[in-house]
Amino acid sequence: MSDARTTNTKGKQVAVVIGATSKWQSDGRNTRLAHGRALDDSSLPVGVRWGIGGAIAQKFAQEGFFVVLTTRAAPNAAGLAAAIREQGGGCAIVELDLSSQDSIRNAFATIRRDAGDPEVVIYNAGYLEGRDLPPDQELLEYIPVEMFDTAHHIASRGPFLVAKEVLPAMRKRGTGSFFFSNNSKSLRGRKRMTGESLYYPRVMMRALAQVLTEEYSEHGVHVANIVIDGTIDSPGTRALPKIRQNPDLVMNPVKIAEAFHYLHTQDRCCWTHELQLTPFSTRPSY
Amino acid sequence: MSDARTTNTKGKQVAVVIGATSKWQSDGRNTRLAHGRALDDSSLPVGVRWGIGGAIAQKFAQEGFFVVLTTRAAPNAAGLAAAIREQGGGCAIVELDLSSQDSIRNAFATIRRDAGDPEVVIYNAGYLEGRDLPPDQELLEYIPVEMFDTAHHIASRGPFLVAKEVLPAMRKRGTGSFFFSNNSKSLRGRKRMTGESLYYPRVMMRALAQVLTEEYSEHGVHVANIVIDGTIDSPGTRALPKIRQNPDLVMNPVKIAEAFHYLHTQDRCCWTHELQLTPFSTRPSY
Amino acid sequence: MSDARTTNTKGKQVAVVIGATSKWQSDGRNTRLAHGRALDDSSLPVGVRWGIGGAIAQKFAQEGFFVVLTTRAAPNAAGLAAAIREQGGGCAIVELDLSSQDSIRNAFATIRRDAGDPEVVIYNAGYLEGRDLPPDQELLEYIPVEMFDTAHHIASRGPFLVAKEVLPAMRKRGTGSFFFSNNSKSLRGRKRMTGESLYYPRVMMRALAQVLTEEYSEHGVHVANIVIDGTIDSPGTRALPKIRQNPDLVMNPVKIAEAFHYLHTQDRCCWTHELQLTPFSTRPSY
Amino acid sequence: MSDARTTNTKGKQVAVVIGATSKWQSDGRNTRLAHGRALDDSSLPVGVRWGIGGAIAQKFAQEGFFVVLTTRAAPNAAGLAAAIREQGGGCAIVELDLSSQDSIRNAFATIRRDAGDPEVVIYNAGYLEGRDLPPDQELLEYIPVEMFDTAHHIASRGPFLVAKEVLPAMRKRGTGSFFFSNNSKSLRGRKRMTGESLYYPRVMMRALAQVLTEEYSEHGVHVANIVIDGTIDSPGTRALPKIRQNPDLVMNPVKIAEAFHYLHTQDRCCWTHELQLTPFSTRPSY
Repeated sequence: MSDARTTNTKGKQVAVVIGATSKWQSDGRNTRLAHGRALDDSSLPVGVRWGIGGAIAQKFAQEGFFVVLTTRAAPNAAGLAAAIREQGGGCAIVELDLSSQDSIRNAFATIRRDAGDPEVVIYNAGYLEGRDLPPDQELLEYIPVEMFDTAHHIASRGPFLVAKEVLPAMRKRGTGSFFFSNNSKSLRGRKRMTGESLYYPRVMMRALAQVLTEEYSEHGVHVANIVIDGTIDSPGTRALPKIRQNPDLVMNPVKIAEAFHYLHTQDRCCWTHELQLTPFSTRPSY
Repeated sequence: MSDARTTNTKGKQVAVVIGATSKWQSDGRNTRLAHGRALDDSSLPVGVRWGIGGAIAQKFAQEGFFVVLTTRAAPNAAGLAAAIREQGGGCAIVELDLSSQDSIRNAFATIRRDAGDPEVVIYNAGYLEGRDLPPDQELLEYIPVEMFDTAHHIASRGPFLVAKEVLPAMRKRGTGSFFFSNNSKSLRGRKRMTGESLYYPRVMMRALAQVLTEEYSEHGVHVANIVIDGTIDSPGTRALPKIRQNPDLVMNPVKIAEAFHYLHTQDRCCWTHELQLTPFSTRPSY
Repeated sequence: MSDARTTNTKGKQVAVVIGATSKWQSDGRNTRLAHGRALDDSSLPVGVRWGIGGAIAQKFAQEGFFVVLTTRAAPNAAGLAAAIREQGGGCAIVELDLSSQDSIRNAFATIRRDAGDPEVVIYNAGYLEGRDLPPDQELLEYIPVEMFDTAHHIASRGPFLVAKEVLPAMRKRGTGSFFFSNNSKSLRGRKRMTGESLYYPRVMMRALAQVLTEEYSEHGVHVANIVIDGTIDSPGTRALPKIRQNPDLVMNPVKIAEAFHYLHTQDRCCWTHELQLTPFSTRPSY
Repeated sequence: MSDARTTNTKGKQVAVVIGATSKWQSDGRNTRLAHGRALDDSSLPVGVRWGIGGAIAQKFAQEGFFVVLTTRAAPNAAGLAAAIREQGGGCAIVELDLSSQDSIRNAFATIRRDAGDPEVVIYNAGYLEGRDLPPDQELLEYIPVEMFDTAHHIASRGPFLVAKEVLPAMRKRGTGSFFFSNNSKSLRGRKRMTGESLYYPRVMMRALAQVLTEEYSEHGVHVANIVIDGTIDSPGTRALPKIRQNPDLVMNPVKIAEAFHYLHTQDRCCWTHELQLTPFSTRPSY
């Protein structure tokens, strides 16, 4: 772990946000893809600068958790970590590559050793594979195998491996929350339209959440699939023409993060295992 | 309206709870059916004495709403109204028979006149038709037509009529919450087992919620179907043998009421239109 | 029963088609509504002249069943009955008003007495309430109560009453097929668009099919909900501009009828309880 | 291709059955696992000796197709191939390992060269990983990564790779059927019970079928997910105690194969994209 602050974790519960940064942050991959350059986010509220992952991390830090931010490359999360500390929160960055079983194992060994067993784990990793395929390559036959394999690692195998890392301790302890940050493409297989990522593997993330709900609820572990059913406010999306024209389409990640925290605070006599969030301006996906 | 306190509604938002009493309250119909007599609820927490409807009414009163309690016969809700006032809340009782279009129209005319246009309407009406059919009359062919008609009035026609009463004002105002308190039998048609009510008409309540979600969200009205997926704590259910043996099966109506209130507080950029609540001890219905 | 041919039923199994005529037949209500007059159907194949109900009746007659055609007014089915007899089939017309419990009871008493206990019952009744509401009255608040009540009688209460009439004999005999001819609006509640009927009550027809599947399969009765997911060829629809421009959108009722007959021939070790039929040119509803 | 008979394919359409043999055939892996030895199947009808794959292959051969049987090791399919030829049908065996992209590519190159472009492809591959984990290792945390990877190759990556092989030619030709033989665990994630395989990855096979349905229907390709919702008759299952006691639980693969062939014969104006088959004795899964 790259951060000496972990020694300050005594007495704080640990929340791990896997994929705490955003492809739409000011210098994110999607932002550069859509706008051709990094953007200046200094005038944006700090809550929206790093998408959902960043907003969740800030929210749980504000609620008193020590938050572990995982990311492929630590510098991506540096701004977020600095913002959390400015707000008086505690956090650390841990590098983690979801396509590598060794990386996952090592990251959680580090987390357990330096921060402690997580009470909350939020799987927020995403990918953008498929997004830049041209209009005449919409059909599945044009998806390269490597693209499918990447989607599989992020949406299916990664969650399986993370589950194996974090659930045994939660089960033995009889408490814990394991939440999946998912999107509407997880609800069923749909045609991939030009500009969309290869998202049908996200149904596996949801299916895993359903399996774990049936298997671990009785052991006191709260599992949920959260369906974020719209475009999320961020430096990169806010600058898109369709959002500039209709700001009602966009979802505030601060509000999304509140929904994640609400789920964690539910009494175990009344657990929700799937939570869909849709802007009022659009019809809910199904 | 039977209650002079409605003059105190100035400045308070109005929440209407349709079906604010419980068939499992100390002297409720189910309580008498299951236990052969009324029970003493004086040792129970006040939050659980009148089931979900009572807990929702108390919660919204505590949050500053003026709460209208509807019930077939005002005396059924007298204890609940007294409890709300003891807690410092404001409420009124309005009699309403969901099988009568005139009764619905009159009740809402009274509510609008004496309390004001409702900001929140929670449809919590239930029925127990079918519950006392013997084991050799499980099949649909044994359901009397009158039983079907009653279920239809509570689960399908009543909600349609109430929607027509309350939605125009919410739409014009651009705000409002209209929530349905439903159960797991609303998710699909299932075989009715001995001791169960004729619940398949509840799928219509859910379908209506889906229709209204698509139709009224863009007008600023929050519609949701809440699936209460278990047995609710109350004087009558707490005394059942299966609950005495396994208290983990039971859902605290105070926590359920918090979920209703949470939905109402969601920012409109992140609305949830179906919320299922399941005790940790059981697998979620679907 | 209005037809002496029923004396010829000896040795033939009985199939009842409830709603054997079509609102889109040459002189049907929808045809007159859409085109302002009756159409000439003499150049159309006989299989498509009376929509799905007519095609199902012809198919089962061709397969050796004595077919009972129910309709509100016998003259509506006269042309269909004549066509079946020309094809060498046996049939009879019975008048039946689905909004009347007495009418349903009397019709089935007649059928049992004159034709025999039905082996196959296909519920194909439809309605068009809501179709002529103008664009500024799309929302549910504009639906008159009478319109809702009619939809309820055709889509929910009628099927319940018919089930009570036909299932006891099928259960005792240990054989029989009870199929519901439904549409894609039965899959969930959707916004009603201008020109559409008030179709959300059709979810109840599907829910009933689900209930009866769970209750009667083990007794040897095959229940199924058939989701006809597109526009059906008929004199009235064929003449619509959007169909004239794209004939691939339209479904041949002869092929739909074959699907109903296929379901009836399934071995009971492999029963299908919901069958959706979608033209290749469109994406399946869900 | 191991079989000179492919020279006889002129004039016959080609049907490929991927996974044409059965783990429950007389000497199959499941049969040996459950009974401790191979069984004698000489007294069983030839239609049930090789499970669904074998019955589908026989059915399409009887209907005039040249059938390609794929299997990991050619000797597994020798008895089936002999039976098809005895019935006057034409077939060939092609070895194919679904965990290897090269093997899939080579197998389809062979099929195209020796038999021709397939008109029908039925993906019937299965696996049994997880079935022998003991009762105290039901939870996901006990599933070895290798087991997950095998399930992924058969249920998710294999179908993706096969789709890429067969769909371009079907799309260009404007005809073809691509069917997935799946089970009820594909409908959602469920707890894995002792003795069950790790089946939640089968939701991906279904999601792929949904994607391909939306993408390829308009190009004339019929895609469907078939949910076989029960135990299939075969030498190995017929000898199980629970089936010997209740033969009504078992599904005849000959009848299942007829359902696959029925789907292929559907007119494209009325395509079904998901077909669930359930024995009358049990309630349908969902």
